[in-house]
Amino acid sequence: MTAPVRLSPNSALDVRAQFPAIENWHYLDSAATAQKPQAVIDAITNAYARDYATVHRGVYQRSSEMTGRYEAARAAAAGLIDGQSNEVVFTRGATEAINLVARSLPKEGRNRVLLSQLEHHSNIVPWQLAGYQVDAVPLTSDGRIDLDAAEQMLTEEHRIVAFAHVSNVLGSILDAKRAAEIAHSKGALLLLDGCQAVPRLPVDVAAIGADFYAFSGHKLYGPTGIGCLWGRYDLLNSLPPWQGGGSMIDRVTFAETTYLDAPMRFEAGTPHIVGTVGLHAAIDWAQGLTIDAIHAHECALVAETRAALSSIDGVTIYGPEDSAGIVSFNVDGVHPHDTATILDDVGVAVRAGHHCAQPLMGVLGVPATARASFAAHSDSSDIEALVRGIEQVKRIFG
Amino acid sequence: MTAPVRLSPNSALDVRAQFPAIENWHYLDSAATAQKPQAVIDAITNAYARDYATVHRGVYQRSSEMTGRYEAARAAAAGLIDGQSNEVVFTRGATEAINLVARSLPKEGRNRVLLSQLEHHSNIVPWQLAGYQVDAVPLTSDGRIDLDAAEQMLTEEHRIVAFAHVSNVLGSILDAKRAAEIAHSKGALLLLDGCQAVPRLPVDVAAIGADFYAFSGHKLYGPTGIGCLWGRYDLLNSLPPWQGGGSMIDRVTFAETTYLDAPMRFEAGTPHIVGTVGLHAAIDWAQGLTIDAIHAHECALVAETRAALSSIDGVTIYGPEDSAGIVSFNVDGVHPHDTATILDDVGVAVRAGHHCAQPLMGVLGVPATARASFAAHSDSSDIEALVRGIEQVKRIFG
Repeated sequence: MTAPVRLSPNSALDVRAQFPAIENWHYLDSAATAQKPQAVIDAITNAYARDYATVHRGVYQRSSEMTGRYEAARAAAAGLIDGQSNEVVFTRGATEAINLVARSLPKEGRNRVLLSQLEHHSNIVPWQLAGYQVDAVPLTSDGRIDLDAAEQMLTEEHRIVAFAHVSNVLGSILDAKRAAEIAHSKGALLLLDGCQAVPRLPVDVAAIGADFYAFSGHKLYGPTGIGCLWGRYDLLNSLPPWQGGGSMIDRVTFAETTYLDAPMRFEAGTPHIVGTVGLHAAIDWAQGLTIDAIHAHECALVAETRAALSSIDGVTIYGPEDSAGIVSFNVDGVHPHDTATILDDVGVAVRAGHHCAQPLMGVLGVPATARASFAAHSDSSDIEALVRGIEQVKRIFG
Repeated sequence: MTAPVRLSPNSALDVRAQFPAIENWHYLDSAATAQKPQAVIDAITNAYARDYATVHRGVYQRSSEMTGRYEAARAAAAGLIDGQSNEVVFTRGATEAINLVARSLPKEGRNRVLLSQLEHHSNIVPWQLAGYQVDAVPLTSDGRIDLDAAEQMLTEEHRIVAFAHVSNVLGSILDAKRAAEIAHSKGALLLLDGCQAVPRLPVDVAAIGADFYAFSGHKLYGPTGIGCLWGRYDLLNSLPPWQGGGSMIDRVTFAETTYLDAPMRFEAGTPHIVGTVGLHAAIDWAQGLTIDAIHAHECALVAETRAALSSIDGVTIYGPEDSAGIVSFNVDGVHPHDTATILDDVGVAVRAGHHCAQPLMGVLGVPATARASFAAHSDSSDIEALVRGIEQVKRIFG
């Protein structure tokens, strides 16, 4: 019997106790959205109740201070992935970030995009709406993007390769550096959907050699409504504006308008000021634990979960052994919605459905899966509750 | 001597005391962004610290409850302007709402848009980026959109007329019903930028006959990062999707994707869940006071301000006598940035600059103005402090 998995169990500051919304609840849906530590909630409350002002435009001191916080958040977001501050655009979320690239990037005569079969809809539909022809790389038998196949499929007609850094269904981790090398070998760019990666993996966009990197705040212990697009500065600054409005212009006349440089060129209108402050607090919080520690912790939870589910007859587990923080499964003969409903009755929240990855469901040959996903606050008690719940499912449907 | 202007001065619940961030501060920049009442801050805190879950996708009860809150917020936003729930799209803000229309509306062979000289950049630049040729209606001598001129200028080449319902610089209120009649007389649509209207005027989109209406939450005592696009349902539902991602699709394959009906078709990705909850609280709060009472209150403050500034030699006031909650002015011979800086020193926050309306500055013949703008919490003490500050400006620059 090994010791239960719990991050910093002997720390004076109990990680789980910092999340007020999960008391007496086994929250295993962190891949959909993360719960918030008190430090993030406090940062949001203070931003509204003590420090609130607009950014960029106010002459008075409070506005100037809030502008400082806004730019400090940008620096923190850049630092999280080892980018530069002026390479980070604040967006509504990762979805808007990918849409921004899909709509703004000049095609330069290349009309194809190379995706994979495990992509989230947010990394499929924007390319379709932008008029790209989509090619999808198949998966290896254990659920990774098959980079050998990618290498074969990529042509000089492909403008960009866009892959999930970590699969939101299978937890499979991409060999991102190799993906960048493959993309660049044919003169294509590499965009990574980092939504599931930044909360659970150390990320270094320069070491990877990525061209664009998208992630959302709400999956990273931060507020809703905020996300980031990182882009190599020369590339980012070569894109034309996408949305127009205040704060992104240099000079407006009815005949002609000129624009600011990146990243401001892409931030039209009053931004989600408090969202950036909360995101900064979330990044500080996660980096305080260290992303390395969170990663190791979630890997231990995944191993424990896979071992526990494997020991139950009639449970199918999807994805590779070394997945990051996410385990999809099905109880044979039971629709995952029924599984999730019964789990809910015993205080365990898992997601059931296509996880915004309908093409992947087709590849797995199922309409849906149940998915347990972890965060820094997760521990063995959650897994024990999950296993007890699945046993209950089997009793009911047995 | 008239009694000082203060909303509900005899109410048991003092309006001003409900705003924790303006203690000992004369905040006169509500047109840039509104401060938040405690009820809104509490709603946001509870959403993160007690009720937090994703919407639409979770099978478990907390997610289902949050989905209920999300849709209740949509109903509240629709109710605020007398629209229907399924006619409201949640956006990042008013800027995104206008960009959505500019980019999605099929031009149907009409390549021109009719704006006015007082528009905010957010109602100019999106049309330019979408490839429209812009015509700008001049203003009357007291700073209103000249609807007689609009009637003359409108042609059947114009796809849409897009006007500010209330000017963010001058406070001038549009005769919106007449604007709709003019637009429709040539088969054009009417979009209203309602950012400055919804916090200070009762709005009824059906009575106006508008086709689209855009507003932001943060100017309406609500959170940052959330706004609304209202559109007549048949029209809204005829628009193709703009941003792609999760929650807006029906069926995704790599070959072809089909989409949900409006409003979901336009809400790609995890939305700003807590933003909608906070917006709902803000709408409830404002409607609790009644928008009529806020309007009357701000009109009284404007009258008091205009009278006070008129009595100071060398102060130029812009805009009509009956402007809504916003007074732009300049101290002759003093750059408004200097005015605002000195006012900041004495605890009065006004905005100075072009107010994201550079073309209007050209019409006024100034590079910038100072602007005092009011909210429900404003009272005569703010105006007295403003006047004392302007006298200080005159002493320093005299």
